[in-house]
Amino acid sequence: MSGYFSSIAPLRFDPDSDGPAFRHYDPDEILLGKRMEDHLRFAVAYWHSFGWEGGDPFGGRTFDRPWFPADTMELAEARAEAAFDLFRILGVPFFCFHDHDVRPEGASLSESRDRLNRIADIFEARMAEGGPGLLWGTANLFSNRRYMAGAATNPDPDVFAYAAATVRDCMDVTHRLGGQNYVLWGGREGYETLLNTDLEQELDHMGRFLSLVVDYKHKIGFKGAILVEPKPQEPTKHQYDYDVATVYALLQRHGLENEVKLNIEQGHAILAGHSFEHELALARTLGVLGSIDMNRNDYQSGWDTDQFPNSVPETALAYYEILRAGGFTTGGTNFDAKLRRQSLDPEDLVMAHAGAMDVCARGLKAAARMLQDDLLESARRDRYAGWQSPAAQAMLGKGATLDGIADAATASGLDPQPVSGRQERLENLVNRYV
Amino acid sequence: MSGYFSSIAPLRFDPDSDGPAFRHYDPDEILLGKRMEDHLRFAVAYWHSFGWEGGDPFGGRTFDRPWFPADTMELAEARAEAAFDLFRILGVPFFCFHDHDVRPEGASLSESRDRLNRIADIFEARMAEGGPGLLWGTANLFSNRRYMAGAATNPDPDVFAYAAATVRDCMDVTHRLGGQNYVLWGGREGYETLLNTDLEQELDHMGRFLSLVVDYKHKIGFKGAILVEPKPQEPTKHQYDYDVATVYALLQRHGLENEVKLNIEQGHAILAGHSFEHELALARTLGVLGSIDMNRNDYQSGWDTDQFPNSVPETALAYYEILRAGGFTTGGTNFDAKLRRQSLDPEDLVMAHAGAMDVCARGLKAAARMLQDDLLESARRDRYAGWQSPAAQAMLGKGATLDGIADAATASGLDPQPVSGRQERLENLVNRYV
Amino acid sequence: MSGYFSSIAPLRFDPDSDGPAFRHYDPDEILLGKRMEDHLRFAVAYWHSFGWEGGDPFGGRTFDRPWFPADTMELAEARAEAAFDLFRILGVPFFCFHDHDVRPEGASLSESRDRLNRIADIFEARMAEGGPGLLWGTANLFSNRRYMAGAATNPDPDVFAYAAATVRDCMDVTHRLGGQNYVLWGGREGYETLLNTDLEQELDHMGRFLSLVVDYKHKIGFKGAILVEPKPQEPTKHQYDYDVATVYALLQRHGLENEVKLNIEQGHAILAGHSFEHELALARTLGVLGSIDMNRNDYQSGWDTDQFPNSVPETALAYYEILRAGGFTTGGTNFDAKLRRQSLDPEDLVMAHAGAMDVCARGLKAAARMLQDDLLESARRDRYAGWQSPAAQAMLGKGATLDGIADAATASGLDPQPVSGRQERLENLVNRYV
Amino acid sequence: MSGYFSSIAPLRFDPDSDGPAFRHYDPDEILLGKRMEDHLRFAVAYWHSFGWEGGDPFGGRTFDRPWFPADTMELAEARAEAAFDLFRILGVPFFCFHDHDVRPEGASLSESRDRLNRIADIFEARMAEGGPGLLWGTANLFSNRRYMAGAATNPDPDVFAYAAATVRDCMDVTHRLGGQNYVLWGGREGYETLLNTDLEQELDHMGRFLSLVVDYKHKIGFKGAILVEPKPQEPTKHQYDYDVATVYALLQRHGLENEVKLNIEQGHAILAGHSFEHELALARTLGVLGSIDMNRNDYQSGWDTDQFPNSVPETALAYYEILRAGGFTTGGTNFDAKLRRQSLDPEDLVMAHAGAMDVCARGLKAAARMLQDDLLESARRDRYAGWQSPAAQAMLGKGATLDGIADAATASGLDPQPVSGRQERLENLVNRYV
Repeated sequence: MSGYFSSIAPLRFDPDSDGPAFRHYDPDEILLGKRMEDHLRFAVAYWHSFGWEGGDPFGGRTFDRPWFPADTMELAEARAEAAFDLFRILGVPFFCFHDHDVRPEGASLSESRDRLNRIADIFEARMAEGGPGLLWGTANLFSNRRYMAGAATNPDPDVFAYAAATVRDCMDVTHRLGGQNYVLWGGREGYETLLNTDLEQELDHMGRFLSLVVDYKHKIGFKGAILVEPKPQEPTKHQYDYDVATVYALLQRHGLENEVKLNIEQGHAILAGHSFEHELALARTLGVLGSIDMNRNDYQSGWDTDQFPNSVPETALAYYEILRAGGFTTGGTNFDAKLRRQSLDPEDLVMAHAGAMDVCARGLKAAARMLQDDLLESARRDRYAGWQSPAAQAMLGKGATLDGIADAATASGLDPQPVSGRQERLENLVNRYV
Repeated sequence: MSGYFSSIAPLRFDPDSDGPAFRHYDPDEILLGKRMEDHLRFAVAYWHSFGWEGGDPFGGRTFDRPWFPADTMELAEARAEAAFDLFRILGVPFFCFHDHDVRPEGASLSESRDRLNRIADIFEARMAEGGPGLLWGTANLFSNRRYMAGAATNPDPDVFAYAAATVRDCMDVTHRLGGQNYVLWGGREGYETLLNTDLEQELDHMGRFLSLVVDYKHKIGFKGAILVEPKPQEPTKHQYDYDVATVYALLQRHGLENEVKLNIEQGHAILAGHSFEHELALARTLGVLGSIDMNRNDYQSGWDTDQFPNSVPETALAYYEILRAGGFTTGGTNFDAKLRRQSLDPEDLVMAHAGAMDVCARGLKAAARMLQDDLLESARRDRYAGWQSPAAQAMLGKGATLDGIADAATASGLDPQPVSGRQERLENLVNRYV
Repeated sequence: MSGYFSSIAPLRFDPDSDGPAFRHYDPDEILLGKRMEDHLRFAVAYWHSFGWEGGDPFGGRTFDRPWFPADTMELAEARAEAAFDLFRILGVPFFCFHDHDVRPEGASLSESRDRLNRIADIFEARMAEGGPGLLWGTANLFSNRRYMAGAATNPDPDVFAYAAATVRDCMDVTHRLGGQNYVLWGGREGYETLLNTDLEQELDHMGRFLSLVVDYKHKIGFKGAILVEPKPQEPTKHQYDYDVATVYALLQRHGLENEVKLNIEQGHAILAGHSFEHELALARTLGVLGSIDMNRNDYQSGWDTDQFPNSVPETALAYYEILRAGGFTTGGTNFDAKLRRQSLDPEDLVMAHAGAMDVCARGLKAAARMLQDDLLESARRDRYAGWQSPAAQAMLGKGATLDGIADAATASGLDPQPVSGRQERLENLVNRYV
Repeated sequence: MSGYFSSIAPLRFDPDSDGPAFRHYDPDEILLGKRMEDHLRFAVAYWHSFGWEGGDPFGGRTFDRPWFPADTMELAEARAEAAFDLFRILGVPFFCFHDHDVRPEGASLSESRDRLNRIADIFEARMAEGGPGLLWGTANLFSNRRYMAGAATNPDPDVFAYAAATVRDCMDVTHRLGGQNYVLWGGREGYETLLNTDLEQELDHMGRFLSLVVDYKHKIGFKGAILVEPKPQEPTKHQYDYDVATVYALLQRHGLENEVKLNIEQGHAILAGHSFEHELALARTLGVLGSIDMNRNDYQSGWDTDQFPNSVPETALAYYEILRAGGFTTGGTNFDAKLRRQSLDPEDLVMAHAGAMDVCARGLKAAARMLQDDLLESARRDRYAGWQSPAAQAMLGKGATLDGIADAATASGLDPQPVSGRQERLENLVNRYV
């Protein structure tokens, strides 16, 4: 390998290594009858690792990559080669991208489409050589100023049409590259101020757009899942895809709850006031758990910090919910994470991913053991055991009425006594695994 | 009038008064063709004003009311008389209560029911004498330790049954007293830790319970609305009725979206990360705007501070959404607000309400003028005017496809240009009214 | 006037205007014996109004200004002319700038200094023609990647030296232009992770740098105030100038509490968990209230939103604290506020400032009346009146001991009774003014 | 042992146990030359474990302890015996208490003092039998309504005197029991609204009170440390002891920075927007690190959740800062943590402490190894190595001037280049230990 990462050898599993290696991620280790790689289904995010320049609202580019600023096709191609170098070093089975990450936008929709396809040719070639598969593709409908007031929810119908064309092109490329899913994150689908917003119309257009996407998926025979990614705020003050429950309401309202699943991000869950495992458990309950964006958000910074995950106790609880849901099908673990802007070196980029992969591997292994040992689940079943009685089931069944239940409760002098929820003991139990 | 408030005369509208009076709330002023009183439909909350003793997590009772601790029926009766004294002083058309606020719990469900009815007799008598009507009744399913792990969502089916009996009794009393609505706030419907929680089962039981309530409403011929009150957290770490969107998802999942409306609280909106007007606008859009709990939450305290509202700019935006929705039908403005615990005097209780009523009146008047002048609405209509074109409408109609839209956009070389959202100019405009 | 703002006439005070005008800001109105202009001392911030391009972390430039990208001296000069056009339209008495806002950085410190001086020549000329004065100058020590790990607190001493040279040059220019103050905001003085940070050394260097600045001020005879601007987080996870109290601790530790004052920003106060009036009142109490950055932070967005102020109740409380402190001396009201990125038009920029100036004028007028009427202050004095007694004063005086006070309290059977804090009544009182 | 905990045997260190045991806390394990017990110096908090009844703002007592409500001396004595039973089961070397936790308040200061001494007699007897020592005593100056507007900062000087008497009595008892420290937490030293607050006077009184306490310590020959405990909010909207930096500013202002140290709580750090390790590192830097209240605050609940710690990665970083400071002298690890209110059983109370002790032991062991291996510290030293040069040191020394530094930098064409901060690599490194 030559180029930006040339000084770095592909990483191997070596638990006793003192140097660069995976200490916990062993793709071939079998957990619950499945290879670890097939459980975790890691993906690298093209945008953070190859597109982001290290800027923040108070300063510009800090990273010195040979492919920046990537505003020509030549630089975009150099970037693609570097990306596949990293994929190879990490040995990840997947990557993810937006159109905007991989090619400079053209002067017209058709030029943009052509450029996207030219980069996809490179991807296809590298994938054929053993490069990773595509976990998902997506369209960037938020960076260009045309989208400043939304894409599907823009007050201008031309922007809706422009966005539709862009998504169509990205779906086509995703399909061609064998993408496992197609993702929609509504980066500007929301509002800055209610004062200039027609909430009803925007929500209707949003549902309409999603229906068009679902129809098109069927038309082209794309077998992957359509995934919506919730986020509560930032960039807009209020985003319509606030959290799992909010997106589910939208899906139901448009009859799409069996057509669309969710891509759930740790950081977005945190910003919405939820734990990551809450969002995963809720999606599991509602039957819409699709894929995850694994990262970590600083609990004390009020914006999307997109850091690499580093807490084993947290990843363990996340994978526990995923295993309870039966594991990923089309989904996987995408690192929607970026280096801190002071982490300038190629080694930083490699080792940030490697550390994150190890943290996820540790979390998964703990989760698998917790599930196998069944201590948590048996405690949970015990707690609700009373609902197995015929009398309890009757309250849930047809024919029960509020007054019927009330009369029986009153007549029997019911006086239920609370029992311990044992939270600390359960937390201790989890700590024996992590 | 004698008793606790004997030193305080009923308040009158007197814009030039230097003493206790309403400076802005004139029940008979006509706005948009309706009396101000009929717009605002104020209610006093029994629990905060007559039940809360001034405690917080770091200290106990500060208020020295003659009816405390109200653990006997005699004290409960004294409290009821004091309450109607305050209602009279304020001239409010409504009040609201929980069972738990008005009578000490009995040793059994039947004794509790009897006691509730005895207090309801007093209410009925005072209401007949010209006292206020009942905006809504509700059951307290969170204070007693039996509910520590939830009511409808308790792991113990006996608690579900106990809660059902309690709600039945409260609905009966609410019906008897001519209540305009019946409210459910799921104070412990949520969880402290996912580790011991069966999320799927709890959410199912919650929907089931709500269906039983709706059925019972129809059975007894209660004509008021059933209202669910969203709240994101506190007391439990995660509450299932998180916000408007979350409750709407639950209603849809159980086919109740046309049977149940929402009682939306300013403070709960804030805790969920939304503005009050967002929650109101969303409920309006979804057709589930029922009633409001008007108060104010400290934006920088992370718990339910339940302060009396005091910001005219904020109440104006709230009433603007309510007027856009056509105003209240069965709903109204309930002050779910409590004195600061250092505000010890009867004058504090009276003037806190009076100040809040004036703030709401100012907000309503501003909102009515904004709506009448149509400047905001015409700006909003202009912004979306493009969607009126046949071509735009076609994208929303049957037959449109993603690729059809995409092909047309690509062929036409579409290049939409952004236009100013004028946020600051609209904010300036609002400031001309408040 | 020709150029970018050519369609907009200078704004005048006209309370009955329907068009662009000040409805409340009348520079010549006398309040508490002083002209309104001399109370408020408005300044426009060069960086937001002329440097910021409308980008956010999810999208780039939205504003289409003829002077962008301002990376040549020609464009920088065009920008300067446009800036003075806006100053003239608004009739503000002051502006503020960073070196980085007004000129492209040169290839070396000396070229950067030369360029700064060339732009300062233009400023000087325009100021001589009646343009506004300089409220304060400052150096941008955070945008360039050399500062990514801090300026005064950088692990590399060369960056400390580079920052010193830059500040020296900016102080010189500020002095030459008759600046009323010189400001230091430590945009990267903080850390991203404690793991790589020597907290002790960085805090020492920070104090050292500040001492050098103070010494230099005296050396060149600069009569303005040196102001530090607190901010708790963003861009770095933890900023050393967290809030007023934190900066005061630093000043004391380096013996600078009589040499340095504070420039306090509404948004930064909010991000630190304080109200703006708290930070102002604390600075007043500590004798370090210097100047203010007036803006507004969305209470529900966790980053620096830098919006134009639009709440009269809030600005009234802020100016109340400023008036209680005796008003500004060298300080003033700088609008550290930027347009929303969808507000594209020159009219947006003008009217955002005009609306903000009116909001401040309304706040100031309310504050002045509250102070004159003395109702709040007399209530405050009454509340603490007990401390005027000789016995109370003795407890504060020399010779009192804990056991002496304790013995006396015990012997006398002391049993103090609480009295109402009357919070809601005081809030009602404020509402009579706003 | 008989009584409430009779079914529970004293816990032992047994890493392979399946039942109740310490899996990681081995008091006698030697780390860095010191026994683990002597590093950690665990204390149980009397108030949470024996005083708190399980109430929250939405519900009352859930715990069914035989000593509740403890409003008689008999019940208080029973409680004391139960407390020492728990101490014995856990084998902790210390406990902590407020006067208010251990005895019902008397009708007068002198009766309260007598009662406190009677309970102290019991403590003394149990301590003589091998019971734990006293880490610190403190006075509750916030629960009784007399303190609703503050203790030292109350507008009523009689409350100041009453508080002084109470603190004197608590200091006497702490001294008599061999307390290692005396703590002041200003639970109501703050304000609910600035409108009724004389900030200057209150801050002065607060400093004055602290000076009286320090003087009294010397007078009675108490050798322990006086510790102030920072907290930003709750119960009052703004607390004067906001965080470490704020308290340090107060101490400096009253010349007490060498007399008073801090008791730093994890949860209070979080509420102030800081990490726990930040507050510890800052206190270490300022020389005021005294003791810690170990617990955990839900990052997403805006109030003091006081949960038992359960994150090893977090406790490791905390103990790392403590070890870097040389470890505790008079201080220790007090569990200022309470059960979740659904954790009803005696086993919950025991195992919550045991789990927390294990988490701390794991954290300490990781911290000790990190310190011993010196990888983090050597990376830190390398990062700042440039400051060791004579030229760098000269900038910090006497005689350096801003313009001198500036001239040299300009003349040399200084152009410092950033180097990677390696954050993710350092985070990975920490993850090898936890």
